Amino acid sequence: MIYEFPQKILFKHCDPAGIVFYPRYFEMLNDCVEAFFADIGFAFEEIHEIGRVPTVQIEAHFASPSKHGDAMVIDLQLTKIGSSSIGLEFHAHCGGVTRLTAKSTLVYISPNNQSQPISDELRAALMPYLRSDQ
Amino acid sequence: MIYEFPQKILFKHCDPAGIVFYPRYFEMLNDCVEAFFADIGFAFEEIHEIGRVPTVQIEAHFASPSKHGDAMVIDLQLTKIGSSSIGLEFHAHCGGVTRLTAKSTLVYISPNNQSQPISDELRAALMPYLRSDQ
Amino acid sequence: MIYEFPQKILFKHCDPAGIVFYPRYFEMLNDCVEAFFADIGFAFEEIHEIGRVPTVQIEAHFASPSKHGDAMVIDLQLTKIGSSSIGLEFHAHCGGVTRLTAKSTLVYISPNNQSQPISDELRAALMPYLRSDQ
Amino acid sequence: MIYEFPQKILFKHCDPAGIVFYPRYFEMLNDCVEAFFADIGFAFEEIHEIGRVPTVQIEAHFASPSKHGDAMVIDLQLTKIGSSSIGLEFHAHCGGVTRLTAKSTLVYISPNNQSQPISDELRAALMPYLRSDQ
Repeated sequence: MIYEFPQKILFKHCDPAGIVFYPRYFEMLNDCVEAFFADIGFAFEEIHEIGRVPTVQIEAHFASPSKHGDAMVIDLQLTKIGSSSIGLEFHAHCGGVTRLTAKSTLVYISPNNQSQPISDELRAALMPYLRSDQ
Repeated sequence: MIYEFPQKILFKHCDPAGIVFYPRYFEMLNDCVEAFFADIGFAFEEIHEIGRVPTVQIEAHFASPSKHGDAMVIDLQLTKIGSSSIGLEFHAHCGGVTRLTAKSTLVYISPNNQSQPISDELRAALMPYLRSDQ
Repeated sequence: MIYEFPQKILFKHCDPAGIVFYPRYFEMLNDCVEAFFADIGFAFEEIHEIGRVPTVQIEAHFASPSKHGDAMVIDLQLTKIGSSSIGLEFHAHCGGVTRLTAKSTLVYISPNNQSQPISDELRAALMPYLRSDQ
Repeated sequence: MIYEFPQKILFKHCDPAGIVFYPRYFEMLNDCVEAFFADIGFAFEEIHEIGRVPTVQIEAHFASPSKHGDAMVIDLQLTKIGSSSIGLEFHAHCGGVTRLTAKSTLVYISPNNQSQPISDELRAALMPYLRSDQ
């Protein structure tokens, strides 16, 4: 299953060249991840006493520029649900054209910053979004 | 005495019109305040167990646009050092032209978020920057 | 009529004290204004060849802190529709508690940065949101 | 030669967990690149009518968290100076501990967004920062 996160390109995202300033894309990806966890029942603001999922690694390729007003959509899928880490894959597109692709790794950590096993509950909520070819 | 904070206008500050996107000015003003407190011996990262100085009110007038590359300078003076609040006045300029003027009020609060009296030490450090006509 | 803009408080808005970092509020107010103009038929990305509405003045009072996860709502009303300027008033609240109030002035300018008269079409679209007591 | 860019961790960079919110790191890397080009004589605000160097790809690994007040330094070296692309490598550290490593690719494009050959002048300015083992 793909998690779809609509993200209209706003004035604040754009630079003097009239296109998205790339660090803003990472805020959008983070918003996508935050919305995803909220939608599967693990809102960050509710689970922070149990755990957090900081990003430890991320890579992105900016395939084509995005302009102010574009109705971009970010597709999110999981590539891995490990013992305490999660692999994510993003595909942001608009009008059938890829804007960026990205991959990241999150680690599930306890409030005192130690990696901890992903609970059965969280794993079950994540599973539907694991790419079928993984 | 005036506290001077140089702030070159960077690519990230500018919008599709090629000028500073106004919410970025508030980040710059905040950076100026953070640098000011560090320079008078009360770095935020060192005093946060004693107190914090959140902004409770701010107003700004954007007199003329700033462009990428401009060597802007923010002048900071204090308009008031109250029992637990501080009045600030900003004048940002470049090449003799005013870019923005702003006024804000900070409140000195304890770690558990209660307003607390400004200590003698902090007051003494602030005093040189109080506008002489106040 | 009041324009309502829901704004959940996200992780990215919050500072080490766990509450909204105030410059982020100005991004939210700007997002609210951008959404408002799009909803009344004058999307910024469509009208930028006719005109823009930069903020020339803004003042805000932060009445109470907002925390990560709060379901804040920004109410927007107009206080003035002048010949080439627009007065705005914001009231952001959550659970019946005011988070911030703000007032700003926008100026309607041409692509070559001169103030220009608000067109009849734009005026008609703005009118329903003018506060009845103005 | 290594280009060193000091970057104190500021309040605005940090999240509710008290550490840098990772998208802010990309703003810092961008600031580092902008300062680097200015220091070698190709300030973005001066060359934008000749060319721009958008980031087309970036990957980062966040090795250890950064806290408010940390005196971080970003080391920048070049890994490649191609016909129209530049490879960059970043190593951000504090007190001898790596905070993040990153690699990115910039493309030198003309004002009408076509990739263009890196001029002899720019190449000569970049050369001293090319890693000796490349």
